[in-house]
Amino acid sequence: MAELKELTKRSESYSQWYNDLVLKADLAEQSPVRGCMVIKPYGYAIWEKMQRVLDDMFKETGHVNAYFPLLIPKSFLSREAEHVEGFAKECAVVTHYRLKNAEDGSGVVVDPAAKLEEEMIIRPTSETIIWSSYKNWIQSYRDLPIKINQWANVMRWEMRTRLFLRTAEFLWQEGHTAHATREEAEEEARTMLHVYNDFANNYMALPVVMGVKSANERFAGALDTYTIEGMMQDGKALQCGTSHFLGQNFAKAFNVQFVDKSNNLEYVWATSWGVSTRLMGALIMTHSDDNGLVLPPALAPIQVVIIPICKNEEQMSTIRSKVDPMIAELKKLGITVKFDDADNKRPGFKFAEYELKGVPVRLVLGARDIENGTIEVMRRDTLAKETREIEGIVDYVKQLLDDIQSNLHAKALAMREASTRSVDTYEEFKTEIEKGGFILAHWDGTPETEEQIKNDTKATIRCIPLGWDETPGTCMVTGKPSARRVLFARAY
Amino acid sequence: MAELKELTKRSESYSQWYNDLVLKADLAEQSPVRGCMVIKPYGYAIWEKMQRVLDDMFKETGHVNAYFPLLIPKSFLSREAEHVEGFAKECAVVTHYRLKNAEDGSGVVVDPAAKLEEEMIIRPTSETIIWSSYKNWIQSYRDLPIKINQWANVMRWEMRTRLFLRTAEFLWQEGHTAHATREEAEEEARTMLHVYNDFANNYMALPVVMGVKSANERFAGALDTYTIEGMMQDGKALQCGTSHFLGQNFAKAFNVQFVDKSNNLEYVWATSWGVSTRLMGALIMTHSDDNGLVLPPALAPIQVVIIPICKNEEQMSTIRSKVDPMIAELKKLGITVKFDDADNKRPGFKFAEYELKGVPVRLVLGARDIENGTIEVMRRDTLAKETREIEGIVDYVKQLLDDIQSNLHAKALAMREASTRSVDTYEEFKTEIEKGGFILAHWDGTPETEEQIKNDTKATIRCIPLGWDETPGTCMVTGKPSARRVLFARAY
Repeated sequence: MAELKELTKRSESYSQWYNDLVLKADLAEQSPVRGCMVIKPYGYAIWEKMQRVLDDMFKETGHVNAYFPLLIPKSFLSREAEHVEGFAKECAVVTHYRLKNAEDGSGVVVDPAAKLEEEMIIRPTSETIIWSSYKNWIQSYRDLPIKINQWANVMRWEMRTRLFLRTAEFLWQEGHTAHATREEAEEEARTMLHVYNDFANNYMALPVVMGVKSANERFAGALDTYTIEGMMQDGKALQCGTSHFLGQNFAKAFNVQFVDKSNNLEYVWATSWGVSTRLMGALIMTHSDDNGLVLPPALAPIQVVIIPICKNEEQMSTIRSKVDPMIAELKKLGITVKFDDADNKRPGFKFAEYELKGVPVRLVLGARDIENGTIEVMRRDTLAKETREIEGIVDYVKQLLDDIQSNLHAKALAMREASTRSVDTYEEFKTEIEKGGFILAHWDGTPETEEQIKNDTKATIRCIPLGWDETPGTCMVTGKPSARRVLFARAY
Repeated sequence: MAELKELTKRSESYSQWYNDLVLKADLAEQSPVRGCMVIKPYGYAIWEKMQRVLDDMFKETGHVNAYFPLLIPKSFLSREAEHVEGFAKECAVVTHYRLKNAEDGSGVVVDPAAKLEEEMIIRPTSETIIWSSYKNWIQSYRDLPIKINQWANVMRWEMRTRLFLRTAEFLWQEGHTAHATREEAEEEARTMLHVYNDFANNYMALPVVMGVKSANERFAGALDTYTIEGMMQDGKALQCGTSHFLGQNFAKAFNVQFVDKSNNLEYVWATSWGVSTRLMGALIMTHSDDNGLVLPPALAPIQVVIIPICKNEEQMSTIRSKVDPMIAELKKLGITVKFDDADNKRPGFKFAEYELKGVPVRLVLGARDIENGTIEVMRRDTLAKETREIEGIVDYVKQLLDDIQSNLHAKALAMREASTRSVDTYEEFKTEIEKGGFILAHWDGTPETEEQIKNDTKATIRCIPLGWDETPGTCMVTGKPSARRVLFARAY
């Protein structure tokens, strides 16, 4: 029971608070496999809600789902030169296909006779295996566009891992599209950036910044990487999703050509885009507090919890008669509600538990409430309590859920705006970056200067924000001309 | 265009017909990775419908989803002795975690410095990794039951593969539950058998036989394996789903004990149950014909296709004015409908295409129909065509979809019943088994006799059917006493 309280405070250690919260709210835990997590039912329920919303958005924008193999022949990685540079290093390699009983009876050992002719890697991303299939699917412009998404697990052998934020195995979706023209592919990459932006803002209540990555931060093999960047409570940025315009790089690597309308043979244009279980980390770090998780109603597996307070079965049955029609009405409005009438936990314990789990609205009904025709309402985002008449409570709760959703967004936006400053000198930059947050500064556009800033300050260019101030200036480091301010931060 | 027609006839070669169909209906194809398939968008859309229905059924019966690691430390497999016997042999083994550039510049090679201390295998099933987690989750009877399901990819390094039916990598769901008592676990295993049976009958229109496996055919590590067995058109049986009562085997292997209500320390009781993309094979082989796929409406991604026949844009716009409200009404009834007005394909081509893809109902509307207020209706299951009044067509289509669903089930049930015979002598058995189908025969209950029958005839005991005739007799092979007839067949 007591352990519920033992959440480290954010002010003591933000990173310990995060780890505590993920474990104590039953979202995920480390597994016996190094760097791989177990996503527990409550955490998975949130991920499922994200999946469902995103999947609907992908389908509305004309995409279909499919499934490609987990394993990728090693030689595929060498085909696209930049891609292999960016990805080949750290990945799980399958070299054998059989175990056998150890001769000394101690267990099982790898059967040396079952060595693969060519090693395979577990996909770190699927461009190569998918483009090797697209080669067979595309002959003519009539076969285009192909707009496929895949929900899958991927692996990158990360050395330092954190639950949800950076794990060796993670779950994600990866879209891979093929187009007849450069314009159409560029348009697709931007469309998906906007889908991600809408999802982050409207469902996660996360006011991300949309932008373009600098060359240093681009996806391996992309001509342009679009990104949505979030600002966490501790002043560090988190890349939440990316959409890549891949040009003809993968089409050339896998020799995917098509006959266009003018009967010319052309290489196909490509995009890819993805978000992952990392979004769970962004969701947690944006809204939660020292009492535990705070969930936006749109993604909460339980939106409303009702807790009875009563001394005996008679009081309980009176309460139940009030609560049953309330539950029916809430459900009719599409609101997920849990009535926790477990008699082996005290109300105070339940309060703490649902606060920890981030349930947006708590209703408490006791014997005195029944006499007075009242009910206690608590909103998780502000922890504010009020006593209201039971009459009309369902409509009130519905409105309250909407309010919580917008309030969380407004709060996160205010935090992000307060944390975003412009600086003009490198000295100022070095001072300000220590305080966290986004910093807008002029940069001369070269990878060398970006690299120097990173080495000096651990800050990277998160993006060149779209639709923000485009006034030219001079680079804070070199004094050379700068096309516009770009967005710096230290990042997860 | 012509290739649409080139489906091998079932009477020529059932297995070639199956392969042709899977490829030409765009359901799946082989990938460059040996034994691993690409599930193409149309095939995946059917699988998604299955997933959605099953997931809802699991949740209605009190289960939640979670996610456990893809990789399993090799040593875990040795913990449960019977389990390792059944599974350890053929699986993908990860031995290294890094590639590096080859010194001769020829591509990438495995970095010998990055050898894992302990090899890992890609999960062939997840009992071991899940029970190693359950150990930390279970202390008291209050922590039970745990009823978790996982949607995942798994790998078994099969030597002979066939699309959907047997592939090295496949998609599935695996339920893993933990209980305080033997009775509750046995009840759970049977409940899930019935869930699978309901799904097969009511959605797949597949009249499976529910039963218990003989000891030889049991899951590695189970005390009882329940199964649903389907009969395909070619007279071969297909195991469609299994539900295992695992006793305390995995709890003992991973030392998972709990304090029961009487304060005694006990081992936990377990079940596991799963169905996979193999169900796609069952669906295809049960209903489809020489013209292509036949889909039960409950699982068809497109339930109704509407094809216009017209000579000019004026006729098209008249047709459109008739069709638009029809589509709106169909959608309101939850029916998925596609209006194929593509002008670069002739109607005959479209007819063949949607027949191949198994769309349950086709509506055709031409200029003469508009004059007469009629529409042509074709049902895919019988290929019967009729001309009806447009008036009332929506209600008729809705009824027709229900009729097709029940007709497919009735047809498959009649086929199964016609194929099921009782035999009394082994000679008769040997003759009859050549004709395919299910054979009910007496068996003395020993693994030796079962093994002999398998060696002589390639037939296995598919199951001891639940709720079928339980009259005792004498074994057809040994003449020893037999408790009841059991169900034999050659199987996929």
